[in-house]
Amino acid sequence: MQFIGITHHSDPWAAALVDSRVFPLAPVNDFWSDPSGWQDKAASLASDASLESVSGASDAGSWLERSSVTEVPLVPASARVICVGLNYKAHAAEGSYKDQELPPYPTLFGRWTASLSVGNVPVPVPAGEVGLDWEGEVAAYIGQRVESADEATAGEAVFGYSTFNDITSRTAQKLTSQWTLGKNGDFSGPLGPLVSRDEVGDLRDGLQVRTRVNGVEAQNGNTRDMIFSVPEIIALISQTFTLHPGDVIATGTPEGVGYARTPQWLLQPGDTVEVEIDKLGILTTPVGDASLRSRA
Amino acid sequence: MQFIGITHHSDPWAAALVDSRVFPLAPVNDFWSDPSGWQDKAASLASDASLESVSGASDAGSWLERSSVTEVPLVPASARVICVGLNYKAHAAEGSYKDQELPPYPTLFGRWTASLSVGNVPVPVPAGEVGLDWEGEVAAYIGQRVESADEATAGEAVFGYSTFNDITSRTAQKLTSQWTLGKNGDFSGPLGPLVSRDEVGDLRDGLQVRTRVNGVEAQNGNTRDMIFSVPEIIALISQTFTLHPGDVIATGTPEGVGYARTPQWLLQPGDTVEVEIDKLGILTTPVGDASLRSRA
Repeated sequence: MQFIGITHHSDPWAAALVDSRVFPLAPVNDFWSDPSGWQDKAASLASDASLESVSGASDAGSWLERSSVTEVPLVPASARVICVGLNYKAHAAEGSYKDQELPPYPTLFGRWTASLSVGNVPVPVPAGEVGLDWEGEVAAYIGQRVESADEATAGEAVFGYSTFNDITSRTAQKLTSQWTLGKNGDFSGPLGPLVSRDEVGDLRDGLQVRTRVNGVEAQNGNTRDMIFSVPEIIALISQTFTLHPGDVIATGTPEGVGYARTPQWLLQPGDTVEVEIDKLGILTTPVGDASLRSRA
Repeated sequence: MQFIGITHHSDPWAAALVDSRVFPLAPVNDFWSDPSGWQDKAASLASDASLESVSGASDAGSWLERSSVTEVPLVPASARVICVGLNYKAHAAEGSYKDQELPPYPTLFGRWTASLSVGNVPVPVPAGEVGLDWEGEVAAYIGQRVESADEATAGEAVFGYSTFNDITSRTAQKLTSQWTLGKNGDFSGPLGPLVSRDEVGDLRDGLQVRTRVNGVEAQNGNTRDMIFSVPEIIALISQTFTLHPGDVIATGTPEGVGYARTPQWLLQPGDTVEVEIDKLGILTTPVGDASLRSRA
């Protein structure tokens, strides 16, 4: 099954996504209180004889055209977006950390949900940046509480995956030792539709991750080259804090980011960046100027 | 005026705090949509002839004994808690960064609201830590939207201040270059009551910040020694992302943390840590063992 967040009755809701239609299921926080239960309900809705027969006929709601709804990130406002830096060897070797040894643990930094976005929403280049950088990657969604877990348990806690673009304000990121500021620009974290784990399988089996800028390939990596697996990352985090359903692990980007190139290649207003990942689809983000910040 | 968060009708609410009594004002998100308006209403309630005369008599609610309510952090779930590291010279000179030059910009890292807590709630020592470290400091609460502000505007955006203890899992913090993991332990970020800015004045005029462990003084600094002022910090952040009411700036801790001592002095189950700050009060946190994580 696939799921997206939508604005429904003026609130953020989770909706099932089948082809070009969506079915509102529950307010986002309710969805994350029992994601597997909602997945079962969504599967049942989707498997009804035909989508047409369900349209408008269910007590719970009705199928809507995806094009008619406003999409929002499918995460609770309180969710933690835990991002992994330097999780592909070739990426760790291309940037500021290239002369350092690979860290023995995942390098974790945070995004707040306030910086998240969805596909087709333009991202502004802040006035102090010479451009924005792309980081195409897989996001993993936690489906159940995880405290002090081993890897096997941690792997079972993943509810699903989506595309993600960890769009970065490099100047702000590199001001000091800590990356947080440059990783939380307005509208800088677009997430694609959530695809349930049963449809994706194990990231170690390999999903191709491609990033294109105005149609030109910028990144082309594979999740089998991740240094730290999703279960390893979750297990480590859970030793210090307890993960909850709806928390997100951004699993890191492969090589090919723009700031490490000579000359640098950064996103400018008018550009379009796409992240395409096997089984997860294409996430498209137009780039705009700083005036778009007035919407934040 | 002073404000705290409480659980009211099963939801997080903002409440006015006068002496030992609280008056529920509005759901937390509604409070932060117009904090100055709610401050005016709270002031009006508090100035009524006597508290007794108001008790139980208002359409909006009634005064309750503080001891009868459950307190929660007075922040929206979506709030960003932006913490400043190395913001006192003597603290920057005592730890891992002591051989490095002072950074020319505030070193910013993030906490998620999920790690926040309130006074008198015990904090667990995670199993992988040899203890927890204290960082007593002032938290500043944003009261209005701030985008690309100058320092004067940024200073006006502060709604109030509270005590804060940035209780740290040092082992997790130092695993890699990024501090996020060790700064987000379960229940590790207690906040005291919010005191409105008009009652606190300018931090540069100097508030004494004292931390005590089992009654023994561990930190004794003054906010006039902050390297970066709150308006400078807010102005810088606002160049990259837009701050919203309810966002929190944790302004950094003075010298005297435990891990930098010889021998190290870290919090153990059974200890009690207090942060006392002029005009903001005393924030008390008991320390417990990892079994307390089951409540997270």
